[in-house]
Amino acid sequence: MKSHYDVAIIGGGVIGGSIAYQLAKRGSKVVLLEKDRLASQSSQAAAGMLGAQVELGTEVGPLFELAVKSRAMFRELTGELKDISGIDFGFVDKGMLKVAFEPEQVAEFQEIIDAQQKMGQPVEWMNTTEVIAREPEISGEILGGMYIPGDGQVSAPELSLAFAKSAAALGAEIREHTEVLSLVLEQGSVKGVVTAEETISCDKVVICAGAWSGILLKPMGIDLPVYPVKGECFSVLTHKPLITSTVFSHGCYMVPKRGGRLVVGATMKEHTYDRKVSFDGLATLVERAKRLLPQIREAEWEKAWAGIRPQTGDGMPYLGEHGDWKGLLFATGHFRNGILLSPITGCLIADLIEGKTSEINLSSFSPTRHLIVKQ
Amino acid sequence: MKSHYDVAIIGGGVIGGSIAYQLAKRGSKVVLLEKDRLASQSSQAAAGMLGAQVELGTEVGPLFELAVKSRAMFRELTGELKDISGIDFGFVDKGMLKVAFEPEQVAEFQEIIDAQQKMGQPVEWMNTTEVIAREPEISGEILGGMYIPGDGQVSAPELSLAFAKSAAALGAEIREHTEVLSLVLEQGSVKGVVTAEETISCDKVVICAGAWSGILLKPMGIDLPVYPVKGECFSVLTHKPLITSTVFSHGCYMVPKRGGRLVVGATMKEHTYDRKVSFDGLATLVERAKRLLPQIREAEWEKAWAGIRPQTGDGMPYLGEHGDWKGLLFATGHFRNGILLSPITGCLIADLIEGKTSEINLSSFSPTRHLIVKQ
Amino acid sequence: MKSHYDVAIIGGGVIGGSIAYQLAKRGSKVVLLEKDRLASQSSQAAAGMLGAQVELGTEVGPLFELAVKSRAMFRELTGELKDISGIDFGFVDKGMLKVAFEPEQVAEFQEIIDAQQKMGQPVEWMNTTEVIAREPEISGEILGGMYIPGDGQVSAPELSLAFAKSAAALGAEIREHTEVLSLVLEQGSVKGVVTAEETISCDKVVICAGAWSGILLKPMGIDLPVYPVKGECFSVLTHKPLITSTVFSHGCYMVPKRGGRLVVGATMKEHTYDRKVSFDGLATLVERAKRLLPQIREAEWEKAWAGIRPQTGDGMPYLGEHGDWKGLLFATGHFRNGILLSPITGCLIADLIEGKTSEINLSSFSPTRHLIVKQ
Amino acid sequence: MKSHYDVAIIGGGVIGGSIAYQLAKRGSKVVLLEKDRLASQSSQAAAGMLGAQVELGTEVGPLFELAVKSRAMFRELTGELKDISGIDFGFVDKGMLKVAFEPEQVAEFQEIIDAQQKMGQPVEWMNTTEVIAREPEISGEILGGMYIPGDGQVSAPELSLAFAKSAAALGAEIREHTEVLSLVLEQGSVKGVVTAEETISCDKVVICAGAWSGILLKPMGIDLPVYPVKGECFSVLTHKPLITSTVFSHGCYMVPKRGGRLVVGATMKEHTYDRKVSFDGLATLVERAKRLLPQIREAEWEKAWAGIRPQTGDGMPYLGEHGDWKGLLFATGHFRNGILLSPITGCLIADLIEGKTSEINLSSFSPTRHLIVKQ
Repeated sequence: MKSHYDVAIIGGGVIGGSIAYQLAKRGSKVVLLEKDRLASQSSQAAAGMLGAQVELGTEVGPLFELAVKSRAMFRELTGELKDISGIDFGFVDKGMLKVAFEPEQVAEFQEIIDAQQKMGQPVEWMNTTEVIAREPEISGEILGGMYIPGDGQVSAPELSLAFAKSAAALGAEIREHTEVLSLVLEQGSVKGVVTAEETISCDKVVICAGAWSGILLKPMGIDLPVYPVKGECFSVLTHKPLITSTVFSHGCYMVPKRGGRLVVGATMKEHTYDRKVSFDGLATLVERAKRLLPQIREAEWEKAWAGIRPQTGDGMPYLGEHGDWKGLLFATGHFRNGILLSPITGCLIADLIEGKTSEINLSSFSPTRHLIVKQ
Repeated sequence: MKSHYDVAIIGGGVIGGSIAYQLAKRGSKVVLLEKDRLASQSSQAAAGMLGAQVELGTEVGPLFELAVKSRAMFRELTGELKDISGIDFGFVDKGMLKVAFEPEQVAEFQEIIDAQQKMGQPVEWMNTTEVIAREPEISGEILGGMYIPGDGQVSAPELSLAFAKSAAALGAEIREHTEVLSLVLEQGSVKGVVTAEETISCDKVVICAGAWSGILLKPMGIDLPVYPVKGECFSVLTHKPLITSTVFSHGCYMVPKRGGRLVVGATMKEHTYDRKVSFDGLATLVERAKRLLPQIREAEWEKAWAGIRPQTGDGMPYLGEHGDWKGLLFATGHFRNGILLSPITGCLIADLIEGKTSEINLSSFSPTRHLIVKQ
Repeated sequence: MKSHYDVAIIGGGVIGGSIAYQLAKRGSKVVLLEKDRLASQSSQAAAGMLGAQVELGTEVGPLFELAVKSRAMFRELTGELKDISGIDFGFVDKGMLKVAFEPEQVAEFQEIIDAQQKMGQPVEWMNTTEVIAREPEISGEILGGMYIPGDGQVSAPELSLAFAKSAAALGAEIREHTEVLSLVLEQGSVKGVVTAEETISCDKVVICAGAWSGILLKPMGIDLPVYPVKGECFSVLTHKPLITSTVFSHGCYMVPKRGGRLVVGATMKEHTYDRKVSFDGLATLVERAKRLLPQIREAEWEKAWAGIRPQTGDGMPYLGEHGDWKGLLFATGHFRNGILLSPITGCLIADLIEGKTSEINLSSFSPTRHLIVKQ
Repeated sequence: MKSHYDVAIIGGGVIGGSIAYQLAKRGSKVVLLEKDRLASQSSQAAAGMLGAQVELGTEVGPLFELAVKSRAMFRELTGELKDISGIDFGFVDKGMLKVAFEPEQVAEFQEIIDAQQKMGQPVEWMNTTEVIAREPEISGEILGGMYIPGDGQVSAPELSLAFAKSAAALGAEIREHTEVLSLVLEQGSVKGVVTAEETISCDKVVICAGAWSGILLKPMGIDLPVYPVKGECFSVLTHKPLITSTVFSHGCYMVPKRGGRLVVGATMKEHTYDRKVSFDGLATLVERAKRLLPQIREAEWEKAWAGIRPQTGDGMPYLGEHGDWKGLLFATGHFRNGILLSPITGCLIADLIEGKTSEINLSSFSPTRHLIVKQ
């Protein structure tokens, strides 16, 4: 074993970057290991919505609480990461608008509004006229929508790089094209990681390899039930933005990016690691986009892409230490909320590593709720 | 004037390349001037159909004759250009299939079949069963089609490069990023071309600048009514080809390229030089492709692009010398048939430059049929 | 004439964008015409140094004054353009360091320091130890350098887009792929511009087509002696930045960009529009970079590119109205200082168009100092 | 187990493609599993030399014999794969020239010439004048060279795709983005492969995962000592080719590709999977290229890239069945000769799978010569 680190982080996406950043900031000696390039998988593909309220709907439990807390961290993070890395990750807080095309949705939205208002989260119903007043290009076909002022958005690839590069500037070591083959597990503790090139000694290991986390652990008899869900997106360009808020509809969302880019997502196909964009997935999104925003017809086509999100059986991420192996931590399974949850995940994991007691109850996210150590 | 050439060719697309190749082969001192990169406009964008019969339908006049003759030149050209440049331009002679979705089309196809058979060109009607037997993935919704065994296809960008690079190997000089600003016209003859960097002396000039040909000539008072028609395309990928022949339908064609790539084209938008792919154009093509070849849904999306084709008032290209200015020749306005007509255009123009009398009557293509020299 | 505008701006680079932005902000009806894409030429290629002091050395005349004033505008512009377009153009004000390898340079630097200090511009001499203390990776071979705290840098492509997209958001119309063929000049005034697609009526025209400005005007008998100077650059990547300030040496500069990108430039080749990167130019830069910053050997190679800068006979840009044609303005010839001078150029031209008297004496930049109207 | 195949091939590079092609042609039901995209690693990066004689020098043993036999297969393969897939893989048989800059090399070359001539392989010494007569752009600084008429070259990425796509056309199933996690090994035989998505039942498995082969097998206790050697390359473009034969010198080779592209390679860095191009590696190649071919200075820079080649302890590939596990075959470790050896490797492995006795003695390539099954 050539080198020793306090913490080895496996996975160079937004979660790994955030953890590396928090740990480097607190003085830990960190190595971030990424088998491809930084942010080359779902962190690259994500549309970057911070949809704490829009994504979780009536599920106002622990994940909702976590999401709302994480969302609140972005404003400060903007300046912090820009100062260190120079990267502006494009935080926009112009709210989100979820519109209804069907009467059933109107009723459903009302329930969500009630549930979230009870939690003290601002959200309001807007009728068709009010929606159109706010976003004049949206189809007059809609039956109204709910407006969530607090749900913003960021550039996901740039947030991911901002975390990792800030971590590097603060002393973290980043190794790309470095595949972790197995962990060194001895006497109930993690002792290091084995890469294709060498064995790295460390005190703690954090697994944040997204949909690949389970694959990595399987040969060691550790079963982490994370499965892949492919999502396809496309983007168009205009000189003058078509919309200002993020707009959400049944099976389609539109996120207005800087300079007139509009990202439209996303399909969902479970249990595949195949990152190809399917003709069919794209054709479906194109159809939905036309219905929601007729003026998109005049936009310039840019490109299409796909990413593989990590999902879990109960839809909750795995955050915390493994019960059987000391020093082995997990931060994965964030599904469509990885970008949103990245700031708080970084802090929570850094707290756990430092032995701080968290003000957040992590029991719902325990990696042992499903984990079975085979032997 | 620093240098002297026999011929200066303006435009580095497939037409300019073909002319440069023929002239270099015959020993002329040639310079090819291209304002951007070789084959950077419609020669790059073309799907590469050699649709002598499919494109011209019942119009079995001089253009038809020219197209059929040009088509016959590809087989020999394949070996010739590959030997010189190393480039295989992907000539495929597996025929073309034009299918009908509407009863009117069935009648229309019958007329075409009659007209072309009279000209001695093989073409046959196939009923739905026969079409599906040939191309099993085509929609069963079709009412039959006509099969043209002689219409093949090539890779348009590679044909264009093969011409130009073969010309270079035979001594032609190629200058990219070289914009021609005006011609030197004296005493009824062309004497040279003025570029942004220098004046080049030459005996003949050939204008083959596609949709930009008229723009180039206008400041000199020469009116060449060529106008732009945008075409948008997209491509998908499969490992096993979905079709083997080129398939043509109302408003959509599909050209199977090497390695399982399928090119689908093309929209038509007149009077614009804007090369952006519009969302609307793409959405329309996507819809048509799904109808014609349902199995395309399973294919991988690759990309979309556009090109600007040069069209003329009567749909005939301009081929020949200008009446008023000796040594000023034109080879442009090929619209959707530039790839197909490139071999014969190269030979015809080289013949004219050498003073050979052509066996082809070029009066229908005369640049003076429309040309008005302003005074 | 279909449409009427207050001002037509010809050229979609950083200068055209800045003028469009200022005019749109002040309520003018503006159209920006770009023959290719926005920022597709030298504004895309520029390294983005704001080298008011480093570039101009002992020449502390009118251009120096202009440069210093323009430099001072960036801080405010950062927030302004980001608010409107969402684009952060990466303004960094960590100073510039110009280092000497030869004793002659040491003497030369001392003269510059004296001249600039007299003008009240901060600049200080640093010996080798002080330079290395500031930038530890710089070669110990250097003999010292001068440090200019006020000279910063930006991302040139993003600044260009931020201007244009902000202009669009404020109502300016942007037309890409729109080539201007000539101007409508009548009775001593400009009346419009003729594009390949239509004639656009307007009251004023601003020519900011960089190295192509002269080409555009020539057919109208207006001689604007701007000539092209090619510059080649390359970039490397590291996780942790190798330097923090921009570093300048004989024939080579290095600009540290966000996220660990390092841009190295730039060669100079006069009188060519050929944008290809030459092997030779690149090899020379690679050699110089190794000498200046030995640690660059460990960096990752990213890519190389080139741009075509507009230069004038006396090195001064053309800023102002044409003497003979009312309403015809020029803003070009900024050579290596286009990015730096873009903010003030936008304001000056907007002032002229509004008829405001400028506090800056523009006589040194007069387009009539060279301009000869042929008849 | 959802599906059953005769053979599962692990690795979609040139070796996997060749084996898939041979097996599909002989009627086997084959699945090719590739964790990324086809030909995405060293098969993409290779310069495509068929250097049977130039690479092996005086080592005229079993590998030499294999290489010479494989080289002889390319001519026929050209037509065969083009007919099926449409892909022309750019086979060029214009020989190879290895030049000497140092007197020691002259002596060394003479030994090679003797050894190879004894094996009946044509190779001749050329003095400086003869070399320059053949390749006029080569530096006059050289002391002569050896010319090998039989060593040609191909386009490595296209050969790889031609194999795989031809295999697909003949019925082989290709699955990209499909990572193999482990093998199903029971009762001394291979029974299937476990991917991230499912378990695939099959009778035979061929491991041709290049430098990743050992990593794949390690968790199963099978030790295959293949290690990675990074190679960096770059390319330049000219309209007229600078050289016609492949030219080899100390630490640098140049392969002229179709259309005037010239590929220059390659560095060697052992024991790294990091595919980044290093500034240092590139600078070294640039320096060597300038010395060997001074005229390269005038060429256009295109790009740089890297690949990871699989090397073994004794420099011999692993070809054959594993001693302990029936049905488990290896075809990896081809180092710099993967492209060259791909045709014969495909045939040899297909023969082994069919139970045919090979005319070639494979004992030197036995996977058991190093292999130690732990347990």
